Amino acid sequence: MTLSEVDTPALILELDPFERNLDRLAASVAGKKVKVRPHAKSHKCPQIALAQIARGAVGVCCQKVSEAEAMVLGGVKDVLIANEVVGAPKLARLAALARQAHVAVCVDDARNVAALDAAVGEEFGVRLDVLVEVNVGANRCGVEPGARAVELAQQIAACRNLRFAGLQAYQGSAQHLRKVDERRAAIEQAVGRVRDTVTALTKAGIECRKVTGAGTGTYLFEAASGVYDEIQAGSYIFMDVDYGRNEWTESGIPRFEHSLFVWTTVMSRPTPERAVVDAGLKASSVDSGMPRVADDPAVEYAKASDEHGVLRLSGQRGYAVGDKLKLIPGHCDPTVNLYDHYVCVRNGKVEALWPITARGAVW
Amino acid sequence: MTLSEVDTPALILELDPFERNLDRLAASVAGKKVKVRPHAKSHKCPQIALAQIARGAVGVCCQKVSEAEAMVLGGVKDVLIANEVVGAPKLARLAALARQAHVAVCVDDARNVAALDAAVGEEFGVRLDVLVEVNVGANRCGVEPGARAVELAQQIAACRNLRFAGLQAYQGSAQHLRKVDERRAAIEQAVGRVRDTVTALTKAGIECRKVTGAGTGTYLFEAASGVYDEIQAGSYIFMDVDYGRNEWTESGIPRFEHSLFVWTTVMSRPTPERAVVDAGLKASSVDSGMPRVADDPAVEYAKASDEHGVLRLSGQRGYAVGDKLKLIPGHCDPTVNLYDHYVCVRNGKVEALWPITARGAVW
Repeated sequence: MTLSEVDTPALILELDPFERNLDRLAASVAGKKVKVRPHAKSHKCPQIALAQIARGAVGVCCQKVSEAEAMVLGGVKDVLIANEVVGAPKLARLAALARQAHVAVCVDDARNVAALDAAVGEEFGVRLDVLVEVNVGANRCGVEPGARAVELAQQIAACRNLRFAGLQAYQGSAQHLRKVDERRAAIEQAVGRVRDTVTALTKAGIECRKVTGAGTGTYLFEAASGVYDEIQAGSYIFMDVDYGRNEWTESGIPRFEHSLFVWTTVMSRPTPERAVVDAGLKASSVDSGMPRVADDPAVEYAKASDEHGVLRLSGQRGYAVGDKLKLIPGHCDPTVNLYDHYVCVRNGKVEALWPITARGAVW
Repeated sequence: MTLSEVDTPALILELDPFERNLDRLAASVAGKKVKVRPHAKSHKCPQIALAQIARGAVGVCCQKVSEAEAMVLGGVKDVLIANEVVGAPKLARLAALARQAHVAVCVDDARNVAALDAAVGEEFGVRLDVLVEVNVGANRCGVEPGARAVELAQQIAACRNLRFAGLQAYQGSAQHLRKVDERRAAIEQAVGRVRDTVTALTKAGIECRKVTGAGTGTYLFEAASGVYDEIQAGSYIFMDVDYGRNEWTESGIPRFEHSLFVWTTVMSRPTPERAVVDAGLKASSVDSGMPRVADDPAVEYAKASDEHGVLRLSGQRGYAVGDKLKLIPGHCDPTVNLYDHYVCVRNGKVEALWPITARGAVW
């Protein structure tokens, strides 16, 4: 089947740029002391996780237990839930999952640590790795650096069924700062906060076995810091319009290519200036801005409604009803979450369908 | 199972306000000449379609063939695809579906009419009802009112396998104009455009059997116009934050209640002013603004990331880690599209799980 025969809307993964992105990230950290643990919330697909692991990744990150379950079921042996897990039903699933694979989880709350310890209990016969999440500037989850982190680490270390495994230190709000210098400065600040916390841990006699964090926008800064041991970049495999707006020159970070597209059909040409495509809000998430027409940057995807996208045309452009075109999603993660599979394409031919088995796995 | 035991994030349908909304809409058009054909793109769930039909709806609207297939499979006998359908694979499915239920579709393009006629062909033994979509102010799909619509209607009438069934005239951009007078004025303009088109059709000797359109924000204006025969309101069953921002007083439209919620857990309390819940972009669509905390309007859902929502607290509010709360989605349709089922709740008890069988049905 050729791409032109694929019905729309469909989520297209162009395998050549996708594989080049995988290779580029691996090459960019070769010889550095950091390990790669890509975030699977971007792709939600075990096939992609295994492709990352085949290029040297030590495992993946997930945000949710249900994502982690999908990854382990798909053959991934090492999963860090880079997030807090709250509530007895999820904790029981987490403990059970830790029998099947190496699973670690993050905490930022003392009662949650106690609940985790109780959930793991004796029955699963595992000791769960637990990282303390530190707020390094994103102001989302995570304890403030220093003393609070030490207290939690001590509490974890004292738990029968838990092991203190290090610090989760992701500066999420740095990733889309447009200028390289802004991103570098934000990570310098994050590194300072991590260093203070590691020092406080050491003073308290607690070994910090690992510091993990970083995203596509900044990961080489964390890698160069001497403080981070693992990087969690996820979006590099796909890129999206939002990451495309970042400046990259002199960041050292390779220019990743767009590999993920929403394949769409022109369904209406009501006026010379307007074309309407069949991919709207339910085909491409607009939380971080509109998608872009891949092969025609002068065309603006001006407006999304549930099932329509309005393109604003200028000049004498074709776009007949029935024409198909590629959109670059505004934000890859929530767009992937709208689909049940990737249509994997190489040289215009469909090569595979990869199921997005963690689609909708938010619990 | 009680609501408090339901794990999060989950999509909760409170059956009491939901059923009151169904009854309110039915009561508000009782005695009027318009029929009700609710838009199923809001709910994507045959159970809800059948509940609407049980209260007098003549059938449903869909936007996509795949949605229509899900509705017909679920027992709905009359579906209008209130949208253009483009491309041979979809047209073949549409023709096949018309053997199983009454199915109608919209057009705004001459070549699409020819393709439809060819797709239906002889083999399916059906004559497909086709409506001409007219642009009544939303500037999305649809031909301009008047002569273009007449030409298309003539073309349809001349097709062996198609029947001209009337006009699709939905003023989508009127629905969220905040003031009643603005919405009323927009619909007056739409009604004028419809009337001109019906007059032009009559002059050309073509009977316009039906005018269909209208949404939750305006449907009583269309109903009172004397021009519209069917109303397509969909969101009234759920309401959402965006519709909640409309003024309703003196519109005549009943005050529909919020019945749809995202059930979420407080997963982090890093500072006194900040709570983080486990429902972000992948649990509640933010295309039309942030969700709202249902039972505490003073709390702001300030920021959504993929799997987190940051609540900004003021004063001495509780919100301990593990607490669960209800969010009202910013926009119901794309939020529903993120889930595989509704958890239907009455008086704090789970009464049913209704599968969202048209979840992801965008093709």
